[in-house]
Amino acid sequence: MKVLNVVKIGGNVVDNPEALERFLIMFNKTEGPKILIHGGGILASEMSETLGIKTVMKDGRRVTDAETLKICTMVYAGWINKSIVATLQKIGCDSLGLSGADAGCVPAKRRSPEPFDFGFVGDVNPAEVNSGFISSLIGRGITPVFCPVTYEKSGNLLNTNADTMASSIAIAMSHHYYTRLVYCFEKKGVLYDQANEESVIPLINTEGYNRLKKEGVVTAGMIPKLDNAYYALKKGVSEVYIKEWTAIAHKAGTMLKL
Amino acid sequence: MKVLNVVKIGGNVVDNPEALERFLIMFNKTEGPKILIHGGGILASEMSETLGIKTVMKDGRRVTDAETLKICTMVYAGWINKSIVATLQKIGCDSLGLSGADAGCVPAKRRSPEPFDFGFVGDVNPAEVNSGFISSLIGRGITPVFCPVTYEKSGNLLNTNADTMASSIAIAMSHHYYTRLVYCFEKKGVLYDQANEESVIPLINTEGYNRLKKEGVVTAGMIPKLDNAYYALKKGVSEVYIKEWTAIAHKAGTMLKL
Repeated sequence: MKVLNVVKIGGNVVDNPEALERFLIMFNKTEGPKILIHGGGILASEMSETLGIKTVMKDGRRVTDAETLKICTMVYAGWINKSIVATLQKIGCDSLGLSGADAGCVPAKRRSPEPFDFGFVGDVNPAEVNSGFISSLIGRGITPVFCPVTYEKSGNLLNTNADTMASSIAIAMSHHYYTRLVYCFEKKGVLYDQANEESVIPLINTEGYNRLKKEGVVTAGMIPKLDNAYYALKKGVSEVYIKEWTAIAHKAGTMLKL
Repeated sequence: MKVLNVVKIGGNVVDNPEALERFLIMFNKTEGPKILIHGGGILASEMSETLGIKTVMKDGRRVTDAETLKICTMVYAGWINKSIVATLQKIGCDSLGLSGADAGCVPAKRRSPEPFDFGFVGDVNPAEVNSGFISSLIGRGITPVFCPVTYEKSGNLLNTNADTMASSIAIAMSHHYYTRLVYCFEKKGVLYDQANEESVIPLINTEGYNRLKKEGVVTAGMIPKLDNAYYALKKGVSEVYIKEWTAIAHKAGTMLKL
């Protein structure tokens, strides 16, 4: 089976046009078929502030009322997604921007309002991802670029965590490809000591992850990302890496194993 | 050859969620393969106003500085495009939202700053439209939904008039299909008397069009639309209609002929 790279880019890179272009050039140079999933939370929060709409977060997740959903859709599916696609076209990477609604690629279910109402937030069942259509794009030499907006079949758009979007797509694609999921962010990997950027843990297995959680080495912000990563491994993704965005082409960062 | 309906929807429909859903239900019921192109200028102007950015129009066309381009991309490619796609999915029409940058569907050239600088505005050469990819979507039973955002190969997104976007796509698709271009708007067709909604001219040929222009019956606002329509007919589109959006399924409105 061919290797497919499913790459999530988030954090500060998306919010910085120069860094973003540098990243996209490196991304384009990685070998073989690939899929990009991007976040954009900082730009969405800035737009909310400009429009006088309060950003409400709960456990690191955005509470999404109707106005916030509109802002997220404008910023993620509109400005960021199309800017990435235009830049990729410029550097010779034929790409196509998608929300979960497009070609029914990523349907979701609105999260229950109990115990906490996150509003228009969707959870994805990887079995419902339209991997056949995504594969057909890759087969035509097109790189799909996903924003973290999904939809429910009753017609609502929904906001979905970009890490979860990436793991769900990777799981679905693992039926077609040997799939490598790469989370790119601004740190060098999972750090043993938050104060020391060089203390990257090169390999973590499930047992080690549980120990690191118990010891408090892995902190609240990283736990959802790592939970997504282990879920992906359990559901068929072959490799998961967490690394700095500048290192996408190198053997670097933290490799996760079951 | 199969009939392909290329439908442009603009005006007040896009800005009214209930009217838009009514329109999309009718659009979905039209027989055979179809493509939708939408505008959204009123929502873009509203968003500009909210953000304190002045909307500048020249001869009915939007002057697009960097901030306005960002707003147009957010509103057209983000909110409107994805809302339409999610609604179409809900009513059973598998659809895919596209800007011109996606899969290189509609490349454009930035308009010369002389004699007037429209800013980030792109003109389309129909010969460069990626009709092969658009046809492949239709072949999979997917309805492409285009927003009027294009790109130039140097990586800039560009704002393009939605009527022009529709005629360019229709011309390109006429190599693959018997193509019918339908401009839907809020009037019943081209009117002989602007004060009388029932004075629809059922058929206009090139000679008649020139006469109507000379007589001042066809007014400034309609001329670019009709010029687009006649250009499409000359370049291979088989039929062009201008009609009210509620009449999309009926024989109604104005038919244009060479």
